[in-house]
Amino acid sequence: MTATRIDPWHNAYARRAAGMTASEIRALFAVASRPEVVSLAGGMPPVDGLPLELVSDIARRAVAEHAVTALQYGAAQGEASLRDAVVEVAAASGVRTHAGEVVITTGSQQALDLLARILLDPGDVVLVESPSYVGALGVFRSYEADIRHLPCDAEGLLPESIEGVVARERGLGRAVKLLYLVPNHHNPSGVTTSSARRVQIMLAASRCGVLVVEDDPYSLLGFDGEPGPPLHALDPTGVVYLGSFSKTFAPGLRTGFAVAPPAIRDKLVLAAESAMLCPSALSQQVIAMYLREYPWRNHVKGLRELYRERCEAMLAALAHYLPDAHWQAPRGGFFVWVELPGDTDARALLPRAVAARVAYVPGTAFFADGQGHSHARLSFCFPPPVDITEGVRRLASVVREEEAVRGAFRS
Amino acid sequence: MTATRIDPWHNAYARRAAGMTASEIRALFAVASRPEVVSLAGGMPPVDGLPLELVSDIARRAVAEHAVTALQYGAAQGEASLRDAVVEVAAASGVRTHAGEVVITTGSQQALDLLARILLDPGDVVLVESPSYVGALGVFRSYEADIRHLPCDAEGLLPESIEGVVARERGLGRAVKLLYLVPNHHNPSGVTTSSARRVQIMLAASRCGVLVVEDDPYSLLGFDGEPGPPLHALDPTGVVYLGSFSKTFAPGLRTGFAVAPPAIRDKLVLAAESAMLCPSALSQQVIAMYLREYPWRNHVKGLRELYRERCEAMLAALAHYLPDAHWQAPRGGFFVWVELPGDTDARALLPRAVAARVAYVPGTAFFADGQGHSHARLSFCFPPPVDITEGVRRLASVVREEEAVRGAFRS
Repeated sequence: MTATRIDPWHNAYARRAAGMTASEIRALFAVASRPEVVSLAGGMPPVDGLPLELVSDIARRAVAEHAVTALQYGAAQGEASLRDAVVEVAAASGVRTHAGEVVITTGSQQALDLLARILLDPGDVVLVESPSYVGALGVFRSYEADIRHLPCDAEGLLPESIEGVVARERGLGRAVKLLYLVPNHHNPSGVTTSSARRVQIMLAASRCGVLVVEDDPYSLLGFDGEPGPPLHALDPTGVVYLGSFSKTFAPGLRTGFAVAPPAIRDKLVLAAESAMLCPSALSQQVIAMYLREYPWRNHVKGLRELYRERCEAMLAALAHYLPDAHWQAPRGGFFVWVELPGDTDARALLPRAVAARVAYVPGTAFFADGQGHSHARLSFCFPPPVDITEGVRRLASVVREEEAVRGAFRS
Repeated sequence: MTATRIDPWHNAYARRAAGMTASEIRALFAVASRPEVVSLAGGMPPVDGLPLELVSDIARRAVAEHAVTALQYGAAQGEASLRDAVVEVAAASGVRTHAGEVVITTGSQQALDLLARILLDPGDVVLVESPSYVGALGVFRSYEADIRHLPCDAEGLLPESIEGVVARERGLGRAVKLLYLVPNHHNPSGVTTSSARRVQIMLAASRCGVLVVEDDPYSLLGFDGEPGPPLHALDPTGVVYLGSFSKTFAPGLRTGFAVAPPAIRDKLVLAAESAMLCPSALSQQVIAMYLREYPWRNHVKGLRELYRERCEAMLAALAHYLPDAHWQAPRGGFFVWVELPGDTDARALLPRAVAARVAYVPGTAFFADGQGHSHARLSFCFPPPVDITEGVRRLASVVREEEAVRGAFRS
């Protein structure tokens, strides 16, 4: 009622705008940026480990030597020089492609948005893991899709669940448009889908005729080095593969890429043109030069060590301060997915946690259907180990207080 | 049928994807980039007139001195430092706002896309000028809107047409969601809406309760200097104002902005977050520093002189080579909207024109309803005057050949 009186345009919005609500991550950004708060919430990579002298010189030369490219309108598909370089980056994750199949996007988030735009009518069904990436859920929701969570375990999605759900939804007259997966170092669960599962998932998706979207920002950030075989390699005509420079280089350049079968690529390019004409030429020029001039694999190797150390600090702190919580040790990526002890509701606990100067993302953000109350996503990517330890300590103390309050009410 | 056999996903696309077809401008980009072709097609500003030494140094310092901002995730609404600077830029066009109302977008194109996303359900009506900007028509079409062209003359849109069309559409049960206008140096018509018309348009829109989208990339590029009073100034609660750095600085940074009433701004920010998380931080940092460090008004003044000279070259060439064509001399911007002589069909003529090494955009691109066959949009922004003259000469010779062929068939 208040909104109705304040906003003269309240009757003018599209139906999809009703699904646009501030995400829990977004609301947290403001709070978590206060210096006294240890943020285990965001997925921000530290950018101070980059070779800043080189990158700043590249930025200078991108303008000074390539002004006509870096400052001008370009192709909606992205610059050829960057698409060439992307072919090599994708190869490092086991994806074999060529520059013609690559579409440069404003981060992977835009790739998700463009895919939803070309594929999803209202009421179409999207299959996702349990839990699933909050940013993808937001996109699917904004296109008024029906999101179905499939069961997962420590090896990833249960492949045998796919065909039953697809048959049931189709029986209800619904189109099942895509299966969205993060097979490597999952956000938020940290799980890496096993090789056997990957084959079974692709076989099931192929039998059902459901397009697979493989979102893969973390494949190069495994602590053991080698990433698992990409789903894309198993069936390049049945998979759209998404990569990103946000985690391995710098998110502020907002540059990711999609590798797509030709007909889908054509539609993605048209959708990209409508969405923004073309991606940032300056960002593309800087990344293309960085990939050409710098041994970027060494930087990624350094990141792996950095994250491994931070992950170990987090796991040690959890074992020490919250031994009765449950988690699976990740083999890479940014996140530990923690089931809090007892009946602790991670979402209800959050304001108290922030008051105690620690932030995280409650598990409910990663479900479209209200699940996830008992879980918290803890990021180890950004704070140094000593802060991670302190953050987990603060979280544990809030959990203990909460348990004490509940115990008092029970007795 | 061919597409059906080639694309295994032909049944998977959303309904809106059917409206995504390669625009005439886009198909031309490939051809027009061949060096032997004089392109009067694109709307690319020349970027070599920028102070490249300063801009390249700014790019270096953006990374070297502001890495934590320029390379990191930022706010979906855009960086505060750039939003502060935008307030001053908007003031130069007569728009009074504050940083809180400003949303930074990936070019104005993305602002249009985000507005369509929050406002348009399939079948909703959008009112536009005759002709209207091709990129906006593409966005509205991709959201499955019904586009209605309102009549225009040398002073802009006829205000008295608004209420009748709105009443008729509402009588048919349709929601009329927005009125899209380019009041200054219109793309493609070159018309600047008169001050009296602006007042009448806003009164009519206000009476009807239709939101106005004022797309204003060219206001600072009038040959006489002072832009007309923005619609936004007449009713800030009824107008979303769109500005761009693509024409006055550099399109390759893909940075524009929207000034919107609070409730619409909130929805735009949520839509932006879903679309790409946040705009390019590097681009924003570079533009914010450029606006702070360089007398950008002087650069814009230089651009005005450059474009005035090119426009004069085009008008002189038209008077010389195509005196029987019709056009209105623009007072700024990038374009002359030419009605070709006789029954010449500009669209049918295009392949022959390109073979004769001149490119333009046929008028049909600027209508959603098949009008515009007799018109061509000629851009004077990019080629130097001597090339403009030669381009118009080539165009005239193709028009004459075509007339001769038609004459031969008639006799």
